[in-house]
Amino acid sequence: MSESIPAADTLSRRTFFNGTAAVAGVGGLVLGAGGALAGTAAKAPAALSDVDLMAQRATLSYPFYGGHQAGIETPPQDHLVFTAFDVTALTAVELQLVLAKWSAAMAELTAGAPVGKIQPEREQGIPVDTGEATDMGPQGLTLTLGFGPSLFDERFGLEKFKPLNFADLPAMAGESLNPALMGGDLCIQACANDPQVAYHAVRNLARMARTAVRTKWTVLGFGRASAGAAQSTPRNLMGFKDGTRNASGGVDFDEHVWVGDEAGQPWMVGGSYLVARKIHMLIETWDEDPIGDQQSIFGRDKKQGAPLSGTAEHDVPDFHATVDGTPVIAADSHIALAAHENNNGLKILRRGYNFTDGLDSVGRLDAGLMFLSFQKSPEQFITLQRKLGSSDRLNEYIRHVGSGVFAVPAGIPAAGSYYGKEFFA
Amino acid sequence: MSESIPAADTLSRRTFFNGTAAVAGVGGLVLGAGGALAGTAAKAPAALSDVDLMAQRATLSYPFYGGHQAGIETPPQDHLVFTAFDVTALTAVELQLVLAKWSAAMAELTAGAPVGKIQPEREQGIPVDTGEATDMGPQGLTLTLGFGPSLFDERFGLEKFKPLNFADLPAMAGESLNPALMGGDLCIQACANDPQVAYHAVRNLARMARTAVRTKWTVLGFGRASAGAAQSTPRNLMGFKDGTRNASGGVDFDEHVWVGDEAGQPWMVGGSYLVARKIHMLIETWDEDPIGDQQSIFGRDKKQGAPLSGTAEHDVPDFHATVDGTPVIAADSHIALAAHENNNGLKILRRGYNFTDGLDSVGRLDAGLMFLSFQKSPEQFITLQRKLGSSDRLNEYIRHVGSGVFAVPAGIPAAGSYYGKEFFA
Repeated sequence: MSESIPAADTLSRRTFFNGTAAVAGVGGLVLGAGGALAGTAAKAPAALSDVDLMAQRATLSYPFYGGHQAGIETPPQDHLVFTAFDVTALTAVELQLVLAKWSAAMAELTAGAPVGKIQPEREQGIPVDTGEATDMGPQGLTLTLGFGPSLFDERFGLEKFKPLNFADLPAMAGESLNPALMGGDLCIQACANDPQVAYHAVRNLARMARTAVRTKWTVLGFGRASAGAAQSTPRNLMGFKDGTRNASGGVDFDEHVWVGDEAGQPWMVGGSYLVARKIHMLIETWDEDPIGDQQSIFGRDKKQGAPLSGTAEHDVPDFHATVDGTPVIAADSHIALAAHENNNGLKILRRGYNFTDGLDSVGRLDAGLMFLSFQKSPEQFITLQRKLGSSDRLNEYIRHVGSGVFAVPAGIPAAGSYYGKEFFA
Repeated sequence: MSESIPAADTLSRRTFFNGTAAVAGVGGLVLGAGGALAGTAAKAPAALSDVDLMAQRATLSYPFYGGHQAGIETPPQDHLVFTAFDVTALTAVELQLVLAKWSAAMAELTAGAPVGKIQPEREQGIPVDTGEATDMGPQGLTLTLGFGPSLFDERFGLEKFKPLNFADLPAMAGESLNPALMGGDLCIQACANDPQVAYHAVRNLARMARTAVRTKWTVLGFGRASAGAAQSTPRNLMGFKDGTRNASGGVDFDEHVWVGDEAGQPWMVGGSYLVARKIHMLIETWDEDPIGDQQSIFGRDKKQGAPLSGTAEHDVPDFHATVDGTPVIAADSHIALAAHENNNGLKILRRGYNFTDGLDSVGRLDAGLMFLSFQKSPEQFITLQRKLGSSDRLNEYIRHVGSGVFAVPAGIPAAGSYYGKEFFA
């Protein structure tokens, strides 16, 4: 059986990687496929084995340096490791050192390299890099750093760098928050097409900072691998497409996602705010709800993802459509409450992942959505969630159990600088 | 940024999937790439976008029916969901119904279909399939079913179907077993190239059997995506290649993996025994050990995976090589203890996955190896583990915390039968 995969004889892996080595040096988004296939143009195209397909996906890389951090506008990768940290260091200098080391290491990791280029491995030394991602390729890894409101308290003298109106999220309806899954002085969102690459990155960043920061909570996510024939929008664990009307494209980002002068902090110009909510789904209860009821709760058809007022996924919902005087899309359905048409044009960039932690303490499936959104101001999320938390019919089936908000600084324009450098000038 | 992925204009996803629809109907292992690329042979080969590469991987499927169950000889997929179940049903008829329903559903799921073909979804009905894998493709899904020793106790009158010498594993050195992660009347090993597809399968199998079985323990695994340029053997979370000398190929399977007459049960002829061990790694401690010491513990070089007596990964280890009278590969190194040369030719098929559960109760990385092995007799594992558990230098850094052994019946030759049918004749 293992021999019956169509072999790509004309395209050995070594040839493939040699052929794309030059391309990989370019700063922009690079995918290995082009160079390799061009090299075999004279022959009939070979079928690619699963191993070859994996090898091509492994070469995907995103530039680390730039005006915005990667991992926001970046098309969502397949896997997430989100970790929040508390700073245990007692001095600002120690914090500064962590941010400088992390920035340099993040550049190495997103290029598919091990950490510690400056300090090469020596056989008799303690390992600098833990090694489990060696030779796996960049796998589209992005690392996005955020600062929690607590970082700007009196401990490190950073009060004056706190963005305007930046504070922990207020208590809201529909929450059942677990203190162990809340807040953090720092957070890292690691996304990659291979979970081992994302895990390796966070593990090594945590490790190099272990005398100064302590991991507080972690969520592993999956479910953006929307790879099937008809599916381009991924499905959440309730079985519904999630993200159909997401903010995307250049105009929306400037209007809804990237921070300008309004934060009152130059380091936030080009940055964003990340809201993280671990949302537990009451899966067994949901699974017993009839499909028609599930559809009226979301306001969408389950199979196609079409709004109940239309026939195709991307049809614009008609919130005024009625049948016999009854709205086709209920006013308290999820899409009606969240729609920008019903919220003065308000949009957020959702970039969440599904999660499952196996079984909970009473043997139920412990699963749900690691909601991650980026927005120009935390108020965008708060406005939407206040409305959803009080009225959304979905609330019967979900509980917000984890929560954090983080100021995501602008990108580092080029090597030689680091996140938070402005704090220590 | 999202627009700069090389576009595969000449190869739309719709064309691609139409082109391969006919191929996908064939019973053998099918990968979509061949048909699609052949359809564009007249034009210059187009670069494949990451979305196209994902779409091609999604079409991979393995046949469900056959002499052996899939998921054993099958090349390891990227993701694992392993779940052990206890049967709560009081009658043999209820158990029979579960096994028959599961067998039919497993055939549907591994073909990339939702469960419940016989009972189509109706809008006002409770959903038959939970929906989150709709249109995602088969993703190389395999579902491997096992029976624990406890299934053959007096509850269902199956005592006489118990294979010879089939019993819970004996207590062994190096264990620190958690009762919540042990045993089970049944188990399912779900492997796929997308975690959502594997999770969906187990969730729906558990759901359709919820009045008769209860999930007992679950482990989610990753780390077989050995996709990089130079890597063909995946790495464990200690950073070492794992599986270099694994049993593979036709001869080894008949000699070491597939059960013959010796189990005394016709239903086990062509089956195997699955040993599952959840092995927690003391990651932080390991990470502080110098590389030279790590290498002498494994008996291999960390970067290449070469035995310390050689220079390339697949060099045959020379356990007699010495330098100044000292063995180059220590007698108590992991590879020396496990090598077939030092165990009368004994081999097992390892098919494990890395896991991480985030942070443990004291804030340490909770991670390790979900060791899964298939063998002709549980004695093969027991012999090896007795030796490793008492002498292996690796024991300082690992703890076996979960354990189970399962009799994996032969495959179902064709539709119309089901696993365990022989028990209810």
